Amino acid sequence: MRCDRIWRKARLATLAPAREGLGLVEDGLVAARDGVILYAGPAEEAPDFDAPLIEDCAGRWITPGLVDCHTHLVYGGDRADEFERRLSGVPYEEIARAGGGIVSTMRATRAASEQDLVASALPRLDALIAEGVTTIEIKSGYGLELGAEMRQLRAARALGAARPITVATTFLGAHALPPEANGDKDAYVRRLIDEMLPAIARDGLADAVDAFCEGIAFSPEQVALVFAAAQAHGLPVKLHADQLSNLHGAALAARFGALSADHLEHTDAAGVAAMAQAGTVAVLLPGAYYFIRETKAPPVDLFRAAGVPMALATDCNPGTSPLTSLLLAMNMGATLFRMTVAECLAGVTREAARALGMGDRIGTLEAGKACDLAIWDVERPAELVYRMGLNPLHARIRGGR
Amino acid sequence: MRCDRIWRKARLATLAPAREGLGLVEDGLVAARDGVILYAGPAEEAPDFDAPLIEDCAGRWITPGLVDCHTHLVYGGDRADEFERRLSGVPYEEIARAGGGIVSTMRATRAASEQDLVASALPRLDALIAEGVTTIEIKSGYGLELGAEMRQLRAARALGAARPITVATTFLGAHALPPEANGDKDAYVRRLIDEMLPAIARDGLADAVDAFCEGIAFSPEQVALVFAAAQAHGLPVKLHADQLSNLHGAALAARFGALSADHLEHTDAAGVAAMAQAGTVAVLLPGAYYFIRETKAPPVDLFRAAGVPMALATDCNPGTSPLTSLLLAMNMGATLFRMTVAECLAGVTREAARALGMGDRIGTLEAGKACDLAIWDVERPAELVYRMGLNPLHARIRGGR
Ligand SMILES: [Zn+2]
Ligand SMILES: [Zn+2]
Repeated sequence: MRCDRIWRKARLATLAPAREGLGLVEDGLVAARDGVILYAGPAEEAPDFDAPLIEDCAGRWITPGLVDCHTHLVYGGDRADEFERRLSGVPYEEIARAGGGIVSTMRATRAASEQDLVASALPRLDALIAEGVTTIEIKSGYGLELGAEMRQLRAARALGAARPITVATTFLGAHALPPEANGDKDAYVRRLIDEMLPAIARDGLADAVDAFCEGIAFSPEQVALVFAAAQAHGLPVKLHADQLSNLHGAALAARFGALSADHLEHTDAAGVAAMAQAGTVAVLLPGAYYFIRETKAPPVDLFRAAGVPMALATDCNPGTSPLTSLLLAMNMGATLFRMTVAECLAGVTREAARALGMGDRIGTLEAGKACDLAIWDVERPAELVYRMGLNPLHARIRGGR
Repeated sequence: MRCDRIWRKARLATLAPAREGLGLVEDGLVAARDGVILYAGPAEEAPDFDAPLIEDCAGRWITPGLVDCHTHLVYGGDRADEFERRLSGVPYEEIARAGGGIVSTMRATRAASEQDLVASALPRLDALIAEGVTTIEIKSGYGLELGAEMRQLRAARALGAARPITVATTFLGAHALPPEANGDKDAYVRRLIDEMLPAIARDGLADAVDAFCEGIAFSPEQVALVFAAAQAHGLPVKLHADQLSNLHGAALAARFGALSADHLEHTDAAGVAAMAQAGTVAVLLPGAYYFIRETKAPPVDLFRAAGVPMALATDCNPGTSPLTSLLLAMNMGATLFRMTVAECLAGVTREAARALGMGDRIGTLEAGKACDLAIWDVERPAELVYRMGLNPLHARIRGGR
């Protein structure tokens, strides 16, 4: 059978649900045509392929290209100065009074052009690409006014044109209350629903809508209004839920059939059950847990027992998770949350794809899916989770190239 | 004045003790001749240099080349399989019975040739080099018999020839008791002192001698015998001290005028005072703290108050810290141990050099020191500590090249 490219003498972690665990294949072959996988499985069961490009993988492992399903990659400025001052003993209140915290990122983001935002995000994106990431979600949420939110989303789309990577964008206008709202969250949510969301939906800038449900952000009632509006525009929803306290965000997300609920440190058994029922993915973010020195871990045992799919992501953002390594996110998932190696690897491939509503297109090595591959110089897939700071990527293929 | 190379339009973090804090210079210049720094400081105070090679740094930051002062970089095999099995719920005892733990690394190390050891260590070394590391300490301690210990140390020296990096070697025969010793630690220590140490000292294979003082390893009395023997051979000593319990290892190290005491999670005020008195460096190893999920942090406040110099290192090893990023070690020092940005940066440069007894030759940007530089694409040095998984190294200079 004619195809464009073949990878042979490879070991595969297909992550295909039809196979057990990681879906390991010892003598594997992948064949692609027009950017799509034609075959991925045991060489001895493969059709007789013929291709102009045949790669001998010399026993290297191939996994699906990695998927980072929760990032705030696009923003202005950084918060390294704030980090330094807090470590020097300056109290958070003083930093906030001096314009620090999320408001400082909002100001820097509003002051940045789309071009500025792309340029400052590129090194972060390149770090992820260097680790085999082929799909990334990028949220807005530092503009907090229509123009700046749209600029963030356009910058995210532009990143997908600047590099060979698939970008899924998420409108996170309900991330924080901007200072000019003078504390009136209801009025801001109304403006978000009446002005921001329709304009963003009209221009096709967002693939999904997210919100931050927390005392310091928006209430479950306000989030419900945002979600209802998003669904009226035909956009899927997801939620920053139960990170710092239990406002029953997981159950709220499940009630709206959310793609994912994210963070989930304080989610209770009822929330877990609701997510299982709704098929909502639990996106766990150990980088933020680590960076803010949280001590309450998300209920991984409950998710596991209930069959809630678990994804892992970097949550790359300047305030609580300046992390641009999905490999390190896996190590943290294992070390800090006691996820297994198989759960970590599924969490940055198959389940991350599902959290983006893209489970039918990417995330596993299966015929019909995009030929997004990460080829690794390792002896076993567990090394990808076990090591810290070593990048054994040999090659990265996106869309067959 | 004639020199070989000049770096201009740079911002410097000299780490020179004569300057305050990080020794920051906004418009800085570095000049080198014969691999040594002739001048590092404000451009306006510089002599009139003339060089065939003049680099415009465009405002980038220059720090001293990084120094990783505690690693077990050379070993056979890895423990990714053990990591995977433990996360799957296999009890440690079962893994140990199946030949896991340090004994598995010992067996793989004994089975490896010097060439094997070099080849398997190179990717780890290259990861550190890619982050601007110009000096690394490498310990033996997985051979636990003369031949294999010597092979480890020779491999460490060979790494220094294979790459442009300075390698300091440490003989750590007193790391663990090999199974063939049948539990007789005293007899093993006698063999170490009577046979191993003299041979290693004779061949000039070790620059220092280390031991592991812990219930599961060697007693303070046994360590004292090893130290006395090391000093009789003219070798400086250092100690794995107080990691899992307080056996007063810090005070023991200080009593022998050790270069450093390392780990120190359980060190008490008396140990801190003894170290301050002796000028022993506290080498903190947050990668191991993180990886084994330790909850007791070393007494950073006490070290700070007593003026004990603090260094940070990767402790790169297969069992408890498979870490090959000194940048990440800094982030962990700040996040997990609440070290300041300045302490973290000094900890991987000036204080790490001092921990190796090389404080007169490397670790700061000062005239007369080796011209080992790391040049960074950052806006402020704090970014090197703040970010996780991003390597902003622009260039690395070792010995002026
Ligand atoms: Zn987030
Ligand atoms: Zn060690």
